[in-house]
Amino acid sequence: MEKIIDIKSFSNPKIKLIRELKKRNKREKSKYFIIEGYREIEKAYIGGYEIEVIFFNESLFLKNNELRLIKKINAKKNIRVLKNIFEKLSYRDRPEGLLAIAKKKQFYLTDLEEIIKKTKNPFFLILENIEKPGNLGSILRSADTAGVDVVIVCDPKTDIFNPNTIRASIGAVFIKKVIIAEKEEVLKILKKNIISIIATTPNSDFLYTEVDLKKPLALIFGSEQYGLSNFWLNNSDIKVKIPMKGRIDSLNVSNSVSILLYEVLRQRS
Amino acid sequence: MEKIIDIKSFSNPKIKLIRELKKRNKREKSKYFIIEGYREIEKAYIGGYEIEVIFFNESLFLKNNELRLIKKINAKKNIRVLKNIFEKLSYRDRPEGLLAIAKKKQFYLTDLEEIIKKTKNPFFLILENIEKPGNLGSILRSADTAGVDVVIVCDPKTDIFNPNTIRASIGAVFIKKVIIAEKEEVLKILKKNIISIIATTPNSDFLYTEVDLKKPLALIFGSEQYGLSNFWLNNSDIKVKIPMKGRIDSLNVSNSVSILLYEVLRQRS
Repeated sequence: MEKIIDIKSFSNPKIKLIRELKKRNKREKSKYFIIEGYREIEKAYIGGYEIEVIFFNESLFLKNNELRLIKKINAKKNIRVLKNIFEKLSYRDRPEGLLAIAKKKQFYLTDLEEIIKKTKNPFFLILENIEKPGNLGSILRSADTAGVDVVIVCDPKTDIFNPNTIRASIGAVFIKKVIIAEKEEVLKILKKNIISIIATTPNSDFLYTEVDLKKPLALIFGSEQYGLSNFWLNNSDIKVKIPMKGRIDSLNVSNSVSILLYEVLRQRS
Repeated sequence: MEKIIDIKSFSNPKIKLIRELKKRNKREKSKYFIIEGYREIEKAYIGGYEIEVIFFNESLFLKNNELRLIKKINAKKNIRVLKNIFEKLSYRDRPEGLLAIAKKKQFYLTDLEEIIKKTKNPFFLILENIEKPGNLGSILRSADTAGVDVVIVCDPKTDIFNPNTIRASIGAVFIKKVIIAEKEEVLKILKKNIISIIATTPNSDFLYTEVDLKKPLALIFGSEQYGLSNFWLNNSDIKVKIPMKGRIDSLNVSNSVSILLYEVLRQRS
């Protein structure tokens, strides 16, 4: 902890960088992104992300293990900022006094073939055009707790480093393998490796509890508003539905995903 | 549709009322609340809510059934407002051109005893101190699709008429019976009627899939941050846990609820 620098002004270039990275278009062009909060920064560290800078303000700490985490991470720079500056940098209502700049990391489809070779009974999750960062985050959280091997995002526009995705994932985005890829390429690999593609859609004859989810599979879910594209509907091996017993005809996508993920777990246990 | 009034100014009292009702403290003191969006207003109508005023702007309509809904509802007043006024009144990024003022409605514990008498195999959901309006909304949505009989909210501070709750519920809040009540009173009624109280908590010996969920039951869930209170932990009949296979040690509460609700449905079907 020798390397602490004190910053007392908004005009410092590192502070300016944080403010830049809060904007999606700037973040997309950058090699870096922001992580806020203890749990999230810790998970990025566990996930092998390079943490460049940690900004902190002790008076905002919630517990007493924050300085220990900073020490363990051993970032290139540790910067103490004034409380009012920290609060301006934070995107949370109740800032916890910890904010980091980390280097982006990504998995590729070539990694997928490797993973398939190493995995006994593949359990994949494919997401297509999930619109809300909060939904994407809480889906990643469920994917981690349910033991999904890889999450494949078929939408090159998805920004997994959106602050709301990171937050809703409580850091799962950093410890889960997330591959962003083109759907045609994903399909090719799944077909080649005989991995069943299971689509959840209201127009189906089977309940999700009626089909065999013990075999190697990839569950696939579409956008909140439009559901799955015809590409995946036409290329799925089995279509299942979740029963709807009320007046509302659909679930929130992250709830649908969680129900399916845990049915896989139930059948496999 | 004879009763259409045109409003072209922000200073109109009805416009002022909308702006007031957007504030929580004002809404709590009022008999009225705001509903935005086609699906939500339609569900309120189905749920028997009295709709006092509908504000609309045709140029923002997404489909062509909006005017038919307005006609069907037959509110006391239908007010056409200019596009720029509507956009200011709306709390959505993409306003759909429909906004209503409705009268609040509530169910009471006395209703619960009636419902128990009429229900073959009670399936209740109890929520304690859910903090995020969006979570509460998506839980209500799942409660509807899973066929829960009643949702009991043990937190008199909960504002089920929060715009984000209504929105995330896509109107389920209006068609589901939601009772807001004190926990001691709720417990008394459940005990008297031999309804099993099933708490989901990490500190449990049973997986949620291992216990009998076919009998009359009330599932209970606590707040995002603190989980269930000791009151409910001590008074629950069975404690169950959801398996955690990854590095993250908990699910988003609305996902936990959905997984449990659908396990009940699976066992009962």
